[in-house]
Amino acid sequence: MGNSLSAIRGIFFDFIDDPWKHVGEEEKSARFYADGLLVLEEGKVKAFGSFAELSLQFGDVPVTHIPDRIIMPGFIDGHIHLPQTRILGSFGQQLLPWLLKWVFPEEKKYSDPEYAKEGSRQFFENLLQSGTTTCQAFTTHDPVSTEAFFEEATKRNMRVVSGLTGIDRFAPEGSMDTAENFYRDSKRLLEKWHKNGRNLYAITPRFALGCTPEMMKVCERLKNEHPDVYINTHISETPTETRECIEYHHTADYLAAYEKYNLVGPRFTGGHGVWLSDEEFRRLASSGAAISFCPVSNLFLGSGLFRLGKAKDPQHTVKLSFGSDVGGGNRFSMINVLDEAYKTGMCNTTILEGRVDPRSQDLSEAERNKLSPYRAFWSVTLGGAESLYLQDKIGNFDAGKEADFVVLDWKAGPRAMTWSQSRLVEDQPATVEDAANLLFSIMMVGDDRSVDQTWIMGNKLYSRTSGEPALAGTR
Amino acid sequence: MGNSLSAIRGIFFDFIDDPWKHVGEEEKSARFYADGLLVLEEGKVKAFGSFAELSLQFGDVPVTHIPDRIIMPGFIDGHIHLPQTRILGSFGQQLLPWLLKWVFPEEKKYSDPEYAKEGSRQFFENLLQSGTTTCQAFTTHDPVSTEAFFEEATKRNMRVVSGLTGIDRFAPEGSMDTAENFYRDSKRLLEKWHKNGRNLYAITPRFALGCTPEMMKVCERLKNEHPDVYINTHISETPTETRECIEYHHTADYLAAYEKYNLVGPRFTGGHGVWLSDEEFRRLASSGAAISFCPVSNLFLGSGLFRLGKAKDPQHTVKLSFGSDVGGGNRFSMINVLDEAYKTGMCNTTILEGRVDPRSQDLSEAERNKLSPYRAFWSVTLGGAESLYLQDKIGNFDAGKEADFVVLDWKAGPRAMTWSQSRLVEDQPATVEDAANLLFSIMMVGDDRSVDQTWIMGNKLYSRTSGEPALAGTR
Repeated sequence: MGNSLSAIRGIFFDFIDDPWKHVGEEEKSARFYADGLLVLEEGKVKAFGSFAELSLQFGDVPVTHIPDRIIMPGFIDGHIHLPQTRILGSFGQQLLPWLLKWVFPEEKKYSDPEYAKEGSRQFFENLLQSGTTTCQAFTTHDPVSTEAFFEEATKRNMRVVSGLTGIDRFAPEGSMDTAENFYRDSKRLLEKWHKNGRNLYAITPRFALGCTPEMMKVCERLKNEHPDVYINTHISETPTETRECIEYHHTADYLAAYEKYNLVGPRFTGGHGVWLSDEEFRRLASSGAAISFCPVSNLFLGSGLFRLGKAKDPQHTVKLSFGSDVGGGNRFSMINVLDEAYKTGMCNTTILEGRVDPRSQDLSEAERNKLSPYRAFWSVTLGGAESLYLQDKIGNFDAGKEADFVVLDWKAGPRAMTWSQSRLVEDQPATVEDAANLLFSIMMVGDDRSVDQTWIMGNKLYSRTSGEPALAGTR
Repeated sequence: MGNSLSAIRGIFFDFIDDPWKHVGEEEKSARFYADGLLVLEEGKVKAFGSFAELSLQFGDVPVTHIPDRIIMPGFIDGHIHLPQTRILGSFGQQLLPWLLKWVFPEEKKYSDPEYAKEGSRQFFENLLQSGTTTCQAFTTHDPVSTEAFFEEATKRNMRVVSGLTGIDRFAPEGSMDTAENFYRDSKRLLEKWHKNGRNLYAITPRFALGCTPEMMKVCERLKNEHPDVYINTHISETPTETRECIEYHHTADYLAAYEKYNLVGPRFTGGHGVWLSDEEFRRLASSGAAISFCPVSNLFLGSGLFRLGKAKDPQHTVKLSFGSDVGGGNRFSMINVLDEAYKTGMCNTTILEGRVDPRSQDLSEAERNKLSPYRAFWSVTLGGAESLYLQDKIGNFDAGKEADFVVLDWKAGPRAMTWSQSRLVEDQPATVEDAANLLFSIMMVGDDRSVDQTWIMGNKLYSRTSGEPALAGTR
């Protein structure tokens, strides 16, 4: 085995299946070791199991013991904007006027390489503090921002998905570019960054309302020429945007604007999807495409309540990631995203259960809206990985996966946490249910403080107690 | 002037009027000193103004300088449950089943004086960490909890409103009591605690659906016998509860169940009011009664979206406090309450603006739903005080008021705060707009960490850096 092996001993919690498939016995989707061992080799998982068993086999491997914490796969943020790091929580506007007032002016600054570098540094350090180890991100219309993004991601050796963000209408002069330039720059960036280290490239038409048919066509061409890259965009975020998009592209619904250019399929993600019809959910499901559910943003911009239970209909289950959508989302932490996702589900559940006409009630959809801790943490780990077709690389602790993980302190956070958690578990979680109960409190009462450490490819890049995140060995 | 005077120097922000009355020029409702002085005498405000002016008059008074912070009146939490401190963020149920599954079993523990004391201690320390200096609280059906509440409040010399919580139906055996016992115990507690120090008493029928006509009648009798006490209860939280209440009490709407027993008027607060009709808002306004808006709870339990802009209609403005409603609310911090209040307003705004039928749009109501930092922080300070008819005692820094205040650190919170705030204000806030911009970021990106210190009657009871809250001098 040699010297390259190392191991982490602690309490481990990860997933092997989608908990929505196990209604009433969701614990079957999870894997829990009250005393576990994660054996690492060159940043990947060599073996994972109980300490009692594995320590026999790996007796001479140096072990780092992390007691009193729950160790989980790192969080995956399926939808976030690099250049909105500084303007999260900006006042008073819904989507379209908010873009004009706050977003485009800030994003323009990322054409300056120094600002783009500083913004990217801030961005990744916020992610690491939040326990987010993978993100799918928008940049700006300017290649400078996309280069800065991948450079800073590479320094930290993080698995990321991003791309130059195409917009050639619905933005002020200087905040967009032509389809022709977008094609040329995307091609160059894609060839440079896709599968370069852990980087992955996404053709990124910003949103259909901001893209002319010419822009959509070059996206289609890029996808034809490079079928293994991603498509990352927005869809059906607000009623006004949805209506205008349908009018502009002369399609029956919002999804059809992307279908028209053959963009919808595996490795396509549409952010939001608040106003998708049942029919659009069905087409998304059958195509293998994904939606990124961004509850913090949907509430902050007043966009509406995503129909989680509808998207998870077993007849047409749509692949989902959860996204912070910073800066439409006002917080980086995926724990805060789970807080608002739970609330969105509960409001939807009330609407469904409370309907006066029993013919329009759907109690099984209402049940699927309930974001249990299993469903929640699956969604930001293995579920997010599946939505990005990365389940062979990240999302749980199966042997061969890349060792990105987060160390959670179930007593950290506001003062109320300690006494609250002590009612659930006296000392240490002994069962999967114990751990799930602690995780639910983390998502509803905790926040970024719950993240004690964040590890990337077996390297500790963030530790709460030691303050500032470090860079990977490539620093 | 003598030795009893002391003073605080720093950046001050408070309110002199309701910002909803100043659409487009909300800064007229606020008072800001970039370099101010707050002179204290025996726990009260002796004088308040700019340092340049007041330091001439109070030159020999010892001054504590608090730099790089915004000092505001303490936060007022209009609706919170003492005995739910430990069960905040409990999984999976809407109001009525949530009460049965989580709440009543926990509340029963407060019949043990030791548990009630420990619970009260935890409760007040959480409030102080959150910057909350006044609350209106529910206890349990057992006088043991009410006694513990007032004893712990008295130790900290906090201005609080509370009372024995009456419930004689809709609860399991052991979690309720008879109307007769409630009358006797309330009478005794009221005579002991009302206006004893800073304590104030509220006759507290839990909610109309949990009260028989006999219970309502003894509440009426208590109010007749003691007209200067408070009435604290719940109203129209969920559709199911509202429907059942109307059926049970044979009234036209929920409010009428309280009106029937002459409980509605000044010093009446109904928590929630999510499903109030326009007509009920009108009657509340004309009676001088108040609603406590609890957005964190309304989202957590899926109860719905409070119509803030309707309640603030200038034709019938309802007095409002904001409440955390812990444990229906999953966070103690009133800063988190403002986060969710903003989101509730934005969702309502979208609904109003997005209506297809322009005849049913109400753009002025939509505008009133926008929770600016002025409206937000007024609501949890002077606005909350007015809803409790305590504006002569607390809520701002007018001379003669009790010196409860909170010291806010505009850079504290998640890592994202520092860079985000630096775009708004380079160094120190110089104008009222600067300060309001920082306050908006505090409410959307900050949390309890934004609270650096909490002072009660001129004594520092909590300091973030020094950890555990201290008790007042009476310890």
